Amino acid sequence: MTAKTHLYAILEKAEEGDRLSRIVDLFIITLIVLNVTMVILETIEGINETYGKFIELFETICVLIFTVEYMLRIWCCTADTKFARPLTGRLAFMLTPLALIDFIAIFPYYIFLLVTIPPDYTLPLRLLRLFRLLKVGRYSHSMQMFGRVIWQKRRELYIVAFALTLLLVIVSSLMYFVEHHAQPEAFSSIPTTMWWGIVTLTTVGYGDVFPITPLGKFFGALIAVLGVGMFALPAGILSSGFVEAMQESHRGDKCPHCGKDIHNHG
Amino acid sequence: MTAKTHLYAILEKAEEGDRLSRIVDLFIITLIVLNVTMVILETIEGINETYGKFIELFETICVLIFTVEYMLRIWCCTADTKFARPLTGRLAFMLTPLALIDFIAIFPYYIFLLVTIPPDYTLPLRLLRLFRLLKVGRYSHSMQMFGRVIWQKRRELYIVAFALTLLLVIVSSLMYFVEHHAQPEAFSSIPTTMWWGIVTLTTVGYGDVFPITPLGKFFGALIAVLGVGMFALPAGILSSGFVEAMQESHRGDKCPHCGKDIHNHG
Amino acid sequence: MTAKTHLYAILEKAEEGDRLSRIVDLFIITLIVLNVTMVILETIEGINETYGKFIELFETICVLIFTVEYMLRIWCCTADTKFARPLTGRLAFMLTPLALIDFIAIFPYYIFLLVTIPPDYTLPLRLLRLFRLLKVGRYSHSMQMFGRVIWQKRRELYIVAFALTLLLVIVSSLMYFVEHHAQPEAFSSIPTTMWWGIVTLTTVGYGDVFPITPLGKFFGALIAVLGVGMFALPAGILSSGFVEAMQESHRGDKCPHCGKDIHNHG
Amino acid sequence: MTAKTHLYAILEKAEEGDRLSRIVDLFIITLIVLNVTMVILETIEGINETYGKFIELFETICVLIFTVEYMLRIWCCTADTKFARPLTGRLAFMLTPLALIDFIAIFPYYIFLLVTIPPDYTLPLRLLRLFRLLKVGRYSHSMQMFGRVIWQKRRELYIVAFALTLLLVIVSSLMYFVEHHAQPEAFSSIPTTMWWGIVTLTTVGYGDVFPITPLGKFFGALIAVLGVGMFALPAGILSSGFVEAMQESHRGDKCPHCGKDIHNHG
Repeated sequence: MTAKTHLYAILEKAEEGDRLSRIVDLFIITLIVLNVTMVILETIEGINETYGKFIELFETICVLIFTVEYMLRIWCCTADTKFARPLTGRLAFMLTPLALIDFIAIFPYYIFLLVTIPPDYTLPLRLLRLFRLLKVGRYSHSMQMFGRVIWQKRRELYIVAFALTLLLVIVSSLMYFVEHHAQPEAFSSIPTTMWWGIVTLTTVGYGDVFPITPLGKFFGALIAVLGVGMFALPAGILSSGFVEAMQESHRGDKCPHCGKDIHNHG
Repeated sequence: MTAKTHLYAILEKAEEGDRLSRIVDLFIITLIVLNVTMVILETIEGINETYGKFIELFETICVLIFTVEYMLRIWCCTADTKFARPLTGRLAFMLTPLALIDFIAIFPYYIFLLVTIPPDYTLPLRLLRLFRLLKVGRYSHSMQMFGRVIWQKRRELYIVAFALTLLLVIVSSLMYFVEHHAQPEAFSSIPTTMWWGIVTLTTVGYGDVFPITPLGKFFGALIAVLGVGMFALPAGILSSGFVEAMQESHRGDKCPHCGKDIHNHG
Repeated sequence: MTAKTHLYAILEKAEEGDRLSRIVDLFIITLIVLNVTMVILETIEGINETYGKFIELFETICVLIFTVEYMLRIWCCTADTKFARPLTGRLAFMLTPLALIDFIAIFPYYIFLLVTIPPDYTLPLRLLRLFRLLKVGRYSHSMQMFGRVIWQKRRELYIVAFALTLLLVIVSSLMYFVEHHAQPEAFSSIPTTMWWGIVTLTTVGYGDVFPITPLGKFFGALIAVLGVGMFALPAGILSSGFVEAMQESHRGDKCPHCGKDIHNHG
Repeated sequence: MTAKTHLYAILEKAEEGDRLSRIVDLFIITLIVLNVTMVILETIEGINETYGKFIELFETICVLIFTVEYMLRIWCCTADTKFARPLTGRLAFMLTPLALIDFIAIFPYYIFLLVTIPPDYTLPLRLLRLFRLLKVGRYSHSMQMFGRVIWQKRRELYIVAFALTLLLVIVSSLMYFVEHHAQPEAFSSIPTTMWWGIVTLTTVGYGDVFPITPLGKFFGALIAVLGVGMFALPAGILSSGFVEAMQESHRGDKCPHCGKDIHNHG
């Protein structure tokens, strides 16, 4: 086993029993979580003035480590037969979603170093650093499971999304027609009324827009009673898909006594 | 096969493999979606002044195409044995729900052309164009499935609707009695209090009406805890019906290997 | 069959095929629904002045019919072996829940006739007439089913009610402690804070009370995320109980072809 | 059977048929519920002035009884083979969760007696008395069942908690970026925006913070539709776990006819 294949195994998600790989994984995950926490805390006023120096230093260290990690990944990816060719293989590897996320996690830092950013673009570029969170996806069982559930239920979700869009269009048009004259501000157009529609049908109900005419209240009440169920459907679909996925992952368990699949037993 | 039967096959929902029919279907669907989007955008102030000419032109073109489609459908419907008679068959066809929707989709346009509409009736007639959305129902699997689910669960929905009405009447009467003196405006009568009832029991909770007396808050809290479950029932019923319908449509799948129904296998 | 047993059969819920009994049932149900609708509409200001005379007349007629119905029921109840004894049997019958409801449905009217009611007690006595709605329970399959579901799930509901009370006490005490100083008005005591607790945990969220301190918002957010699930439990329990009850009532269906229980078939 | 083992059996949760033990249990439970009710009512202004003397007396009596109960438990715990050793056994017993709860239930009272508490710490110490509620856990089947359900579903809850945290971070960062300029007060930082995120995603929707810019409303609507389902997942998981636990506890029932486990029958 060459140094390259060895390094490749360490950087990939740890196999059971591979202690060094596991430590590297945990180190990277801790770094990501700490870094993202800082990006979040940074937005609190006053924090920057007091801890600005420390945050900047920590950011630099993180980016350096992530850069080294990225470089090493590109160097040793040829250990995988899929990316075996020195140039085209590495290019193909760089375009895989996980490698792209790794790239997005570091490049805003270098942009800031190289170019003078106009102040309007500072905030979006700083927030882009939150994408680092997606680097955790490589190690996280739960994020992969969620991805799988959404993929498995895509047909159901399409149908429901279509029905919800239809419902929202009809409901908002009706309400626009009924309330437009009484509240020309809040119900100024059908797209504006859709804000009311979603806030009501998801039962959030901020209270910034609501019907005030008797007819508007009548239709609003009817819409609430009938529509609330529809907007709860995606939750129900995902929920049942999630439960199924959990059961399946249980089913794959080995028997703790004999090591065979549990289903081969009575 | 005559031109008529051929045309009939094209206009109906495409069978698998019939490419021409499929293209026609997609063309009509695209037209409907674009048209409805315009009806929605039209209500935004300023849009009409800038794009009014273009929207009007597009509307005219759409209506012309829909009119031709409608005419052709009526002409070639006799290809179906159910509507085979030249006159009574065509009349029967014109009274089918889908043909009626096709008619409603175009007739407001001609009303505007022929008659001077008093300004009060302009908005409703313009919004009537949104009914064109229902034309998509002919092609949409998901709208048909929803219709079927509601039909299958009609007994459950009746019972729940009855129980919810009863609950709403009792709850609103109680609250009217308790809060009427403290808030004669918001709780002015039992029907008015029903607005509070629905906004609370669906958990929308805009915050425009809520009890302020201690007794009102006590009953309001009790009603919320006990009633919220009831108003979630229609959602639960539709949700489980929908899941069942999806499973059934899966069950009808053919085995990808041998082409037989999957259920004939183990 | 004497006139008494015949009358008894007519007044009870109709057996299949008994047309006269069915007509009587429908007549009584219609009367109840109309009457309750009037009690509700009566509370709208202005209605009384315009339609007061008519409403009063209709009320008198309804009460007379209900009184006759009540008298006849008491007279002919001896046709049932359970209430066969002329005096003690009739007294036992008068104390059954359904007979008591029948009594409550008419007695406020006679109180008004006999005694001068102080104006403070007019409204409650008038609203007592809404109890007539419960008379429908005799004929309504769905109300009986709901009663059965609640009875079957009583153990689960007890447990959840206990847990919710506990949760509400803990959550409200915590919030009272955290927010009391910042908002001495809205969070004036633990029972007052429970109003916030219920409005939040049922996700109604009127917006009349909410935490404003950072610590209060932190705990409020935590409570919302963890607690919302708990308060959805009664809904889930009733919902699943309702679905089971519907399935059971289906299972009892006879085969439409041969008249045998459907389950005796493959 | 010595006095000690006898007392131990009485203080522990009653076995079926042990009447004396049952009466002691009920007495303690009643005392706890009454005491906690008083702690709650005490916070209402005016109560203390009127009933202060009585509440104080009742509190003293309760604490005395709870102290005697605690002492007796420690004395007779050696009847259990696990805590048989006079000193180390008793110490081990004192560190069991239930014994710790018993201790927390009484010690604030003695602190107040012994030390002068600065007024800032009076309220928290008084509210600590609410922990007495947890003493009910010893007797309550339902609290133990909830504990078990949460434990059984811990894997699912971890995954969902992780996903919800991720979702909240992403959603709040996006919203902070979009609304920060329009509402620098309400969306002052990402942690502040998380308050909006949780209030929206749990569908509480107080209405104290909501997006006002068109872009903010667009993303807010999208987030509401997609995210509401996610935050309903813990409820769904606990709910299904609770239903399973109830079914299992039913399954353990004995056959009413022969007294054997129901599962030994067909």
